[in-house]
Amino acid sequence: MLTLPDKVSFSFPTAIDFGIGVRRGVAPMFKERGCKRPLIVTDEGLAKLPLIHDLEVLFSGDGLEPQVFSGIVGNPVESQVKAGITAYREGGCDSIIAVGGGAAMDVAKVIGVMVNHPGEIFDYEDGKPDGLPVDKELPLLVCLPTTAGTGSEVGRSSVISEDETKVKRIIFSPRMMPEKVFADPELTLQLPAKITAATGIDALTHLLEAYLAKGYHPMCDGIALEGIRMVSESLKICCDFAMLDDDEVDLEGEAGIAAHAAARGQMMLAALMGAVAFQKGLGMNHSCAHALSTVCDLHHGLANGMVLPYSMDFNERGVPEKFRRIEMMTGIPSFGFGKWVRVLKADIGLPGGLSECGVTMDHVDELVAVSLKDPCHQLNPVEVTADDFRNVFILAMDSDD
Amino acid sequence: MLTLPDKVSFSFPTAIDFGIGVRRGVAPMFKERGCKRPLIVTDEGLAKLPLIHDLEVLFSGDGLEPQVFSGIVGNPVESQVKAGITAYREGGCDSIIAVGGGAAMDVAKVIGVMVNHPGEIFDYEDGKPDGLPVDKELPLLVCLPTTAGTGSEVGRSSVISEDETKVKRIIFSPRMMPEKVFADPELTLQLPAKITAATGIDALTHLLEAYLAKGYHPMCDGIALEGIRMVSESLKICCDFAMLDDDEVDLEGEAGIAAHAAARGQMMLAALMGAVAFQKGLGMNHSCAHALSTVCDLHHGLANGMVLPYSMDFNERGVPEKFRRIEMMTGIPSFGFGKWVRVLKADIGLPGGLSECGVTMDHVDELVAVSLKDPCHQLNPVEVTADDFRNVFILAMDSDD
Repeated sequence: MLTLPDKVSFSFPTAIDFGIGVRRGVAPMFKERGCKRPLIVTDEGLAKLPLIHDLEVLFSGDGLEPQVFSGIVGNPVESQVKAGITAYREGGCDSIIAVGGGAAMDVAKVIGVMVNHPGEIFDYEDGKPDGLPVDKELPLLVCLPTTAGTGSEVGRSSVISEDETKVKRIIFSPRMMPEKVFADPELTLQLPAKITAATGIDALTHLLEAYLAKGYHPMCDGIALEGIRMVSESLKICCDFAMLDDDEVDLEGEAGIAAHAAARGQMMLAALMGAVAFQKGLGMNHSCAHALSTVCDLHHGLANGMVLPYSMDFNERGVPEKFRRIEMMTGIPSFGFGKWVRVLKADIGLPGGLSECGVTMDHVDELVAVSLKDPCHQLNPVEVTADDFRNVFILAMDSDD
Repeated sequence: MLTLPDKVSFSFPTAIDFGIGVRRGVAPMFKERGCKRPLIVTDEGLAKLPLIHDLEVLFSGDGLEPQVFSGIVGNPVESQVKAGITAYREGGCDSIIAVGGGAAMDVAKVIGVMVNHPGEIFDYEDGKPDGLPVDKELPLLVCLPTTAGTGSEVGRSSVISEDETKVKRIIFSPRMMPEKVFADPELTLQLPAKITAATGIDALTHLLEAYLAKGYHPMCDGIALEGIRMVSESLKICCDFAMLDDDEVDLEGEAGIAAHAAARGQMMLAALMGAVAFQKGLGMNHSCAHALSTVCDLHHGLANGMVLPYSMDFNERGVPEKFRRIEMMTGIPSFGFGKWVRVLKADIGLPGGLSECGVTMDHVDELVAVSLKDPCHQLNPVEVTADDFRNVFILAMDSDD
């Protein structure tokens, strides 16, 4: 049975405090750094749950004066960041606490840049020829993830979309890396089953694509393999528990709840590890997922999960030896990798096919075109043509079970 | 067959440039940073080889004015560091390039501290109650490892001994981390077989003990497992090649030399990964090795290798499941882990038993006492008593083949 360790600290390369209750370390850290009025940056959905209120109470009781900005809905856009900057200034804030998934983290990082840098948000776009430099110290920023998926909490970049066109722009600076992540599994215990599944399979996709990606980075490979094993042990447990109703949870008793917390903790770290590992690169599955988000507005994690069996089948034909190693690590040699991904996808309750997600055959041409333009597949271990993308989308359209 | 990738860069947490010829990147980096007169810190043995002269020529040709300090012999002592500080000042140096194994790296780091901090070296000892802080910026320091063992090039600490007592003291500061490692496998091609074996088994010991160590750090676990696999693929190839005479090397041809370089490169990274992984902790084997160095003046890596089969047998009885995972990773399930370590130890030419290294049964009491006092075994996965240490030393005394 999975068990949780006592609180532990990692520094790798982001400092991470991990364990039940580590959120209690936030206020002492802020006070030590002379910060008193943090802006809690979170999304609209989370702000309605007791979790944010409970954190406000916790931080206030510890002597901070937290302000809350919860104006994030869906994939973050420029106007939301601007509203966050206004909230920071009007609230007289001196520091930032991001609470949520990738969207909250991404917005929090850019608020950090903009409160003491001139110009407009997209003046700081990565690679912009006449862009402005992030050259001043940013306010203290820590992250409290509430999902186990993007791993944005260990990253140095944000993806912010233009309001009108929805075109995604990347803001990057080493200074944007959060100073500490408080990875507290208790903050993910209430995550609904659907979000658990979609974010969890996103983490698995990061790990698989990072391991498979072209390039030589044995440290990332080792972290990715261990992370895949951890997901194979824990994602289904998290989803099973999230699907229970209150009566069923009661029946699980303390041991069941502890097992759930341990699985949530393991997924939390596996997601962090996915983001550490994918500095090596990603692959064709992310190109498909980006296309599905752009063309059909699918949730990024769900999109990744829906095409995963088919992109992996494609890659397995090209680099079978890498899949043999993944199987060795995850302990599933008996029935094969493709079957394992399909069983996992079904077990955690993802839809059978893209046709159940509002995607139709009429979308395929555009999906292929957008996938081809996406840069992720350049590091796919096997070259991907338009026909290969087309096949993956068509195969993913309906359940093959 | 092993192959080397083109030059790649890692940042994890130290920035690493890896690949044949990456040493050519040193001078451009120094010039970009406005440094012109680096002190090359190396040991007496290396300074006699063409390697150091070749580096001087290379760096001079690129516009630097390198000075050389080669006053390091054996385990570094305080007076050697002081001589290095004098060399830095008298040479009008503005930066440091460490070239060598752990000793050169450790001395270089402390020279970096002392050239612009007051007081004496041991005023900066880690954990000293009235110690002085390393609070000023240090001169630019990069490392060019010539062995694949300690991994000191990615660490933030140095071990320096007192001249009289030989007592080891640890100097630690995050500022001591080298700014970049130039991991150039060509610098290790000439390493003699005995040093290749002793440093290589040191790297393996770091990886094994880090993976086995108590504590929860899945990122270190993943890196350690991948590193163990890399050693299992490459250490024997390095040693086999190092044992060849010139005629035999000629017979190998270009393909053989490329395979040797690839194996050297893989060992170089595995050693780095060992040092990254052992932030998690080490174990009883290092306590034995520290005792063997203190009591019988054994080379640290050799000492680690000589007891490794016996400490691993002891641990396997306590945590067999961890050894099953190591076996899975290294692909040696057919004849078991203990046998694998013994075969490797013999294959790379380590002595059969401690009795061949000047250790006698008369030393055992003191070895046990020193081992018990050493802190490393506190993180061993199984508790170690005086009797357990005694058994390991006695078993390691003579070959059991």
